[in-house]
Amino acid sequence: MNHRIQTLRSDFSSIGIDAAIIMNFENQFYYSGLKAITYSRPIVLGIDQNETHLIIPSLEEEHAKDKTDVDKLYVYHETKLESSRGESYLDYFVQMLAQFSPNARIGIEYSSCPVILRNILADKGFTLLNVDSYIAEKRFIKDDVELNLIKESGRLVSLALKHSLENAKAGITEIELDQYGNSALFDEVARTHPNSTLDFFVMSPSGVKRTNMPHVFSNTRKLENNDIIIHSRQVGFNGYRAECERTFFIGEPTAEQRKVFSVAVEAQLKALEEIKIGMRASEVNEIARQIIADAGYEKYMKHRTGHGIGIGLHEEPSLRFDNELVLQKGMVFCVEPGIYVPGIGGFRHSDTVILSDKGTELITQYPYSIEELIIEKR
Amino acid sequence: MNHRIQTLRSDFSSIGIDAAIIMNFENQFYYSGLKAITYSRPIVLGIDQNETHLIIPSLEEEHAKDKTDVDKLYVYHETKLESSRGESYLDYFVQMLAQFSPNARIGIEYSSCPVILRNILADKGFTLLNVDSYIAEKRFIKDDVELNLIKESGRLVSLALKHSLENAKAGITEIELDQYGNSALFDEVARTHPNSTLDFFVMSPSGVKRTNMPHVFSNTRKLENNDIIIHSRQVGFNGYRAECERTFFIGEPTAEQRKVFSVAVEAQLKALEEIKIGMRASEVNEIARQIIADAGYEKYMKHRTGHGIGIGLHEEPSLRFDNELVLQKGMVFCVEPGIYVPGIGGFRHSDTVILSDKGTELITQYPYSIEELIIEKR
Repeated sequence: MNHRIQTLRSDFSSIGIDAAIIMNFENQFYYSGLKAITYSRPIVLGIDQNETHLIIPSLEEEHAKDKTDVDKLYVYHETKLESSRGESYLDYFVQMLAQFSPNARIGIEYSSCPVILRNILADKGFTLLNVDSYIAEKRFIKDDVELNLIKESGRLVSLALKHSLENAKAGITEIELDQYGNSALFDEVARTHPNSTLDFFVMSPSGVKRTNMPHVFSNTRKLENNDIIIHSRQVGFNGYRAECERTFFIGEPTAEQRKVFSVAVEAQLKALEEIKIGMRASEVNEIARQIIADAGYEKYMKHRTGHGIGIGLHEEPSLRFDNELVLQKGMVFCVEPGIYVPGIGGFRHSDTVILSDKGTELITQYPYSIEELIIEKR
Repeated sequence: MNHRIQTLRSDFSSIGIDAAIIMNFENQFYYSGLKAITYSRPIVLGIDQNETHLIIPSLEEEHAKDKTDVDKLYVYHETKLESSRGESYLDYFVQMLAQFSPNARIGIEYSSCPVILRNILADKGFTLLNVDSYIAEKRFIKDDVELNLIKESGRLVSLALKHSLENAKAGITEIELDQYGNSALFDEVARTHPNSTLDFFVMSPSGVKRTNMPHVFSNTRKLENNDIIIHSRQVGFNGYRAECERTFFIGEPTAEQRKVFSVAVEAQLKALEEIKIGMRASEVNEIARQIIADAGYEKYMKHRTGHGIGIGLHEEPSLRFDNELVLQKGMVFCVEPGIYVPGIGGFRHSDTVILSDKGTELITQYPYSIEELIIEKR
């Protein structure tokens, strides 16, 4: 992580800050390598010109020593014996601030920094600046180490999706459908990557009503004959994610479902074919939007064409109609235009691509055509 | 959720506020019933004396209508066609505030409200008060509906833990160990609870080094003969959680491991036996601490004796040495004193109890003695 901190420090003057306080969990991982199971006990990362500071609960002490090489570790305690060494993270926060120069300008994340910390900083007279965008922009260009992790996630998420879809049938629940792919994923990672961490996200809204809700947790609804299902997955391998999603059917879809499906797939494939370094994000969105609009379904779009991915499940840059950012080498995108028609169903495939010098690399794979996405009834 | 909002409104004058803005995800679920897959697109809940306000992204519109009955839904859009209806949640935030009286005192969560919203509120001249504690206190007394969900989670988490431990053996990975219980859990929930949601958390740090880190994600390390393992689980059934954890061994533990194990178990059982309505939280902590200190292991405690549980995986009240709160009917606790000895291992069982009129009800079950927690070598 050291080169990231060096970059941040060398950008201090252009940002206009003397130090940064990082509270967003993903940004903490980006700059320190530490990812906690829970943040119900707060964790604070401070970076000034000379030192890195990490405030952690005692039960993360070994974990933090294992994963980070911060200069100063402030460990707060919750046991009677150790409480004299400091039991409030806020006390350590004040102690850390005492090491910053009194008139320091401090970068904080306006979207993540809680009011309780902001008030302490303001009371002490520090000048506060928002570093949300700065960090988002650093994160959206991935280096080779990050890209290799994301590629492996692409392979793993494709494998998991394949196992779920091959075992799909009427009578099993959404959660069971997910489970087939999870098991295959765990087996594969255990076999190929000892001592690795794995995040996985999966949801499989099924039926006309639930596929119209793009983001719902899988539940125990049983798949039925004539269902439409969106099986949606992310895998994070050692902290870096890729996404793959497929819309599929149990039994013959209706004529209207076939039509909407073909439009959604055409929009996705065209956007995947066209996306490249030098385009604007808005242009990618427009390719998909135009196809959907020409077919008369624009009013059934609920979201942008896609988004960046990496440490975060969604991150910048957004493939959105109003994002004029020019796409660059090292960016990674999920391309997933969706159409949601009440009474007919929700339709969305997603695949992940890396923008590289050598062209656009598709890192997730599964058949996308309707013939390959109809499961036999039982 | 309506009675919760009525209670909040009737408490407005004693808190000293005219409205509240809820940003914490768990508190949003508590007051609205809505839990999102991701909050990368912000969600804001506002409650004033007359109306409830929910600001959501367009792809959550159907979901929000399905789960909540808020008075005003503000839907922000990210597609070109709909953007004229409003594309920024901040614009809707300002619109919502315009309906509050100009000098309103507004309750916000200092630990969760981001600086970006606080600054808008402050710029508009509203007076801000911290409602973190108020909401935490409301949440820590569970009603009968909540307790029934938690009891079912207790049954489910015990069942999942049992399946993982019964399948534990040298050669499988931590993730595979977890997976046995997950599969059993999914099967059981699908069978007994159609159309329910399920959260599950599981981690199984294995070996001396990793069990010394109380909170680490399971990885692909393979269990080995002579390992010590802490298998830790939570299940959330329709949003309400219970926890069960067991420390176990593959093959005969060392004499020192036997000794530390017996102290940790004695501390837990004594605390479980004694905890009841009318005690102070600190007294429960002291029961466990005293046993561990008498055995000479106090310096190896890293955390409090336990914590509340419900919507959150950790919530108030904390069973901590300095918490003088008197325990009340309807509180739910995980009791889990832990001892972490470098070179020897980490030792912690956890069980969940409900404090009721009829006494203390243990809602998680699995054998706790060392004889029942030694797996044969292979």
